[in-house]
Amino acid sequence: MEILTSNNIWMMVCTALVFLMHLGFAFLEIGLTRQKNTLNILFKNIFIITIGLLLYCLIGFNLMYPGFEEGSFGIIGFSGFGLDAPLNSEGVIDLTYNSGYTYWTEFLFQGMFAATAATIVSGAVAERMKISAFMIFTLVYIGLIYPIAGSWKWGGGFLHMRDVPFYDFAGSTLVHSVGGWAALVTVCLLGARIGKYKDGKPQAIPGHNIPLATAGVLILWFGWFGFNGGSVLSAEPGATSLVLVTTSLAASAGGIVCVLFSTLKYKNFDLTMFLNGILGGLVAITAGADQMSPLDAIYIGGIGGIIIVFAVSFIDKLKLDDPVGAIAVHLICGIWGTLAVGLFGNLASLSQFISQLIGILAYAALCIISSFIIIYSLKKTIGIRVTKKEELEGLDAHEHGMVAYPDFRLNEH
Amino acid sequence: MEILTSNNIWMMVCTALVFLMHLGFAFLEIGLTRQKNTLNILFKNIFIITIGLLLYCLIGFNLMYPGFEEGSFGIIGFSGFGLDAPLNSEGVIDLTYNSGYTYWTEFLFQGMFAATAATIVSGAVAERMKISAFMIFTLVYIGLIYPIAGSWKWGGGFLHMRDVPFYDFAGSTLVHSVGGWAALVTVCLLGARIGKYKDGKPQAIPGHNIPLATAGVLILWFGWFGFNGGSVLSAEPGATSLVLVTTSLAASAGGIVCVLFSTLKYKNFDLTMFLNGILGGLVAITAGADQMSPLDAIYIGGIGGIIIVFAVSFIDKLKLDDPVGAIAVHLICGIWGTLAVGLFGNLASLSQFISQLIGILAYAALCIISSFIIIYSLKKTIGIRVTKKEELEGLDAHEHGMVAYPDFRLNEH
Amino acid sequence: MEILTSNNIWMMVCTALVFLMHLGFAFLEIGLTRQKNTLNILFKNIFIITIGLLLYCLIGFNLMYPGFEEGSFGIIGFSGFGLDAPLNSEGVIDLTYNSGYTYWTEFLFQGMFAATAATIVSGAVAERMKISAFMIFTLVYIGLIYPIAGSWKWGGGFLHMRDVPFYDFAGSTLVHSVGGWAALVTVCLLGARIGKYKDGKPQAIPGHNIPLATAGVLILWFGWFGFNGGSVLSAEPGATSLVLVTTSLAASAGGIVCVLFSTLKYKNFDLTMFLNGILGGLVAITAGADQMSPLDAIYIGGIGGIIIVFAVSFIDKLKLDDPVGAIAVHLICGIWGTLAVGLFGNLASLSQFISQLIGILAYAALCIISSFIIIYSLKKTIGIRVTKKEELEGLDAHEHGMVAYPDFRLNEH
Repeated sequence: MEILTSNNIWMMVCTALVFLMHLGFAFLEIGLTRQKNTLNILFKNIFIITIGLLLYCLIGFNLMYPGFEEGSFGIIGFSGFGLDAPLNSEGVIDLTYNSGYTYWTEFLFQGMFAATAATIVSGAVAERMKISAFMIFTLVYIGLIYPIAGSWKWGGGFLHMRDVPFYDFAGSTLVHSVGGWAALVTVCLLGARIGKYKDGKPQAIPGHNIPLATAGVLILWFGWFGFNGGSVLSAEPGATSLVLVTTSLAASAGGIVCVLFSTLKYKNFDLTMFLNGILGGLVAITAGADQMSPLDAIYIGGIGGIIIVFAVSFIDKLKLDDPVGAIAVHLICGIWGTLAVGLFGNLASLSQFISQLIGILAYAALCIISSFIIIYSLKKTIGIRVTKKEELEGLDAHEHGMVAYPDFRLNEH
Repeated sequence: MEILTSNNIWMMVCTALVFLMHLGFAFLEIGLTRQKNTLNILFKNIFIITIGLLLYCLIGFNLMYPGFEEGSFGIIGFSGFGLDAPLNSEGVIDLTYNSGYTYWTEFLFQGMFAATAATIVSGAVAERMKISAFMIFTLVYIGLIYPIAGSWKWGGGFLHMRDVPFYDFAGSTLVHSVGGWAALVTVCLLGARIGKYKDGKPQAIPGHNIPLATAGVLILWFGWFGFNGGSVLSAEPGATSLVLVTTSLAASAGGIVCVLFSTLKYKNFDLTMFLNGILGGLVAITAGADQMSPLDAIYIGGIGGIIIVFAVSFIDKLKLDDPVGAIAVHLICGIWGTLAVGLFGNLASLSQFISQLIGILAYAALCIISSFIIIYSLKKTIGIRVTKKEELEGLDAHEHGMVAYPDFRLNEH
Repeated sequence: MEILTSNNIWMMVCTALVFLMHLGFAFLEIGLTRQKNTLNILFKNIFIITIGLLLYCLIGFNLMYPGFEEGSFGIIGFSGFGLDAPLNSEGVIDLTYNSGYTYWTEFLFQGMFAATAATIVSGAVAERMKISAFMIFTLVYIGLIYPIAGSWKWGGGFLHMRDVPFYDFAGSTLVHSVGGWAALVTVCLLGARIGKYKDGKPQAIPGHNIPLATAGVLILWFGWFGFNGGSVLSAEPGATSLVLVTTSLAASAGGIVCVLFSTLKYKNFDLTMFLNGILGGLVAITAGADQMSPLDAIYIGGIGGIIIVFAVSFIDKLKLDDPVGAIAVHLICGIWGTLAVGLFGNLASLSQFISQLIGILAYAALCIISSFIIIYSLKKTIGIRVTKKEELEGLDAHEHGMVAYPDFRLNEH
């Protein structure tokens, strides 16, 4: 009982921290985009967390943890609508459910994760996607795809059943790449923002509020203590504290290495590269945060930082317009971090590396296909992009009938 | 000892979270008002939390928990000035005081609540109330009225002594309505802002910083994990985790239902209605967060969201100028949530419903009368409203000799 | 095991809270300075936390806790590069290391502190110091000086070995004054911002974003629950909860007293004085937060508030240009709080007061000499100050090639 209470406290604290990541994402996304689309991004982020929790309650939790039976294929399962807390003989919640947390805590912690995947997409498609199309995408992707994806590993599905199970501690693949693949597909189908490419060359479109973007990254790091720390699924002192150390060192190394390379490359101290380097380090360590030594974490995060420098400019050259760098951070560093589990730390081995590769490919297939079907269907029906006039004048005025900063004089662009 | 340590950790974490709600309120209130009154609102919020804790230390705590004796009327009691921690025979703090927390934790957790009531008023009276009058009101209302109100139920007073005790888990009435009634009274005595009504029709006065308002709501939700989660007064795993789930689902349902109705009514995706819907859901679930199933919570929060849509426009029609929607959110949803304890969940019964109604009326009487006396006295003496010139030019320049954003070019309005 | 788990949870929560203080400092510093130097400050803050953790991992932790042997001088020691978690016979982390936390938790909690000292300097030197010089200063000061300073007391060094040991619970001297002395030295060598003094009289240079400055102070207060609460080094209920109470009451008293005096002196309700008063109270209570009664805390914080009023204007008269008031807050209130341990609370005695005085002088000597050597060397080599043109046009454009708010129209000044 005492230990359950302690474990459950830690898990509740972590749940709250993961919740706060939605503020971090909101600040980051609006900070790195133009003021005329601020309300639109905030609306999407608020929509994601509220509808995300309701959908996860209605259907997601039981789709993600269906209780696959031994011998099943472990691809899809469903244990019924709504929440159904196990009760003991006295009719109150059964606290022997788990030594790490109650049924309620498990639902809420996992529910907070679910919304994250859609948030990643939100940033990548900012400033040009129709709000209605985004909302429908969110419903399907959070409601169905994310939980099915999660069931393959965390729900005990086929990737978990392998002889050398796929390993993804806190979701470099299950959360970040799942969001990242959908971001990539949607950006491809959506096209670049007006003015992003001139004569084939990418143009910088500066974000309108860098202090909030910076705050967003610090809040995300803060929330990551819960994201990774809670993924231990108990408060076991050795494991949880190691995870906080590897998480923080990977973030630090990602930031420092990224800013070092970008300073050498671009000859100025670029704050947004610094921020994205930190996020790249955080995403990269997430798959193996509990399996790495501090030094491993520094390597993994640092390589994540290098990846960011080159991935951001590579994605730009491919004419994939990702205003906040979500694809580089969440998809590419997510893949890197997942592979790193086979290269560094306790699990490093060729067979683990192959298992990681198989997992990555399985998630790529699921996410690319499903998000293509959703987005392409929307494109052919209600449309996914706002009109040229709406885009130029800003989504805030057209979709929301308001502006973010009415008392301030603004530059038109 | 182990279990006290665990419980006390949870309560301290919750205390810190409730403290952070003051940042949430500050962001929400400044975000929804004009830039020229920003410093004034921030000053009030900082004043409330600092003076609030000092007053609660000096007098409030012992006014709220006077230790009513059996057979007393349970209306007012006082157990002495200052804090007086129970000591054991060795002269150090007596840890057998309570199995859920220490004397210090109890004081600080309750002290953080005390300040909240005045903050609710701060938003409603923004942009036109004299700072000196507001400060005096705060002294009396936090120092005396809030603790007396609290003693009636949480201090074991007459509403608690009833056969079917009034139930208010975390303060839909004791905190939110106590603030809401005072907001209503003050708004009536203060009048609308210049320009709010033209030819009898309410005019929109847009808030100047919607990103901060949105951040405020997310921070308030985050803080509510402590507000409701800590009101279990221990870390009991089943109860605390259920409370976090009902709180989050009510917030989500409140937001989604509110934005759905307001979109149908006003034909655009209104972010501020979304935000107020979330707050309405949070306030509504607060009275019975520990007594509801997840589905009950969704109903209660969702109805809270509908209430917001209609209450905001109804209050507007009554020519009650409440810049941040505090009366709809805290008073009306507070009443709804308190009544809902008699309609949903474990306690639902006619007798409980009647007990809730009696409690609501008792608090209405206390708060309306006391706040009327305070505010009316101030109106007749030092005055409660700034001059027309001050209001037009902004309270920041006149009351504080500074402006919030000196480097930005601003629109005059 | 149960109690270790509980203690470690509290320490991890506190670690996360101290991390978030870096957001608080960032908001405070940018809020109180001009928009044209915003990115520069944010860059410095992000650099400090990332490089700070890496340096503390590489060298700092083992420099601060070298395990001084009995009979050694206790001035400097080093137990090797990198982290080296004690393992038990099974090769996993030895949880008997400490009953309050694991090796990993200790590293990370202390690492979060290390970065704070440099952040204090960042604010004081804002708007005119070369980023490259600041970065080199940070490397040496966080990497070497802070840990050596820490070892003298927290690492068991000579100030701890005294018959009446120097007492500094959470770092009024070891963190805040260590940063404050370096701030003082650097400000002296750097000179005032252009335009700060006209005909010998100090001119107000208003901060560009007071809402963020206010948020910064509330976030710092929130983080201080971890800074002081975690310095108990366990979750012992009586001590931790007392510390939260004394911390909050000192903050409140500091703010209220400061605003009272400054209102009397300057005839308006000055929000930034309110904010600095709160910080002064927080810094002052930090040295003895676990040794004071609530009433002692109110006295110590309140006197801290008075000190702020006079120290800010005194420093201004000395023509020391400190844009954020860091010297008054962190150095002068840090000294006051350290002395207060000999005057109030459990340890009050003449011998303790003398021991505190000796400690203060020892830290003054170390920090003044070391920071003078670092900064003077930089001044004579790469230079520490940006050019006049860069200063007038802003460090953001020149050092970072970006601006913080590209969509907003700004005033030139």
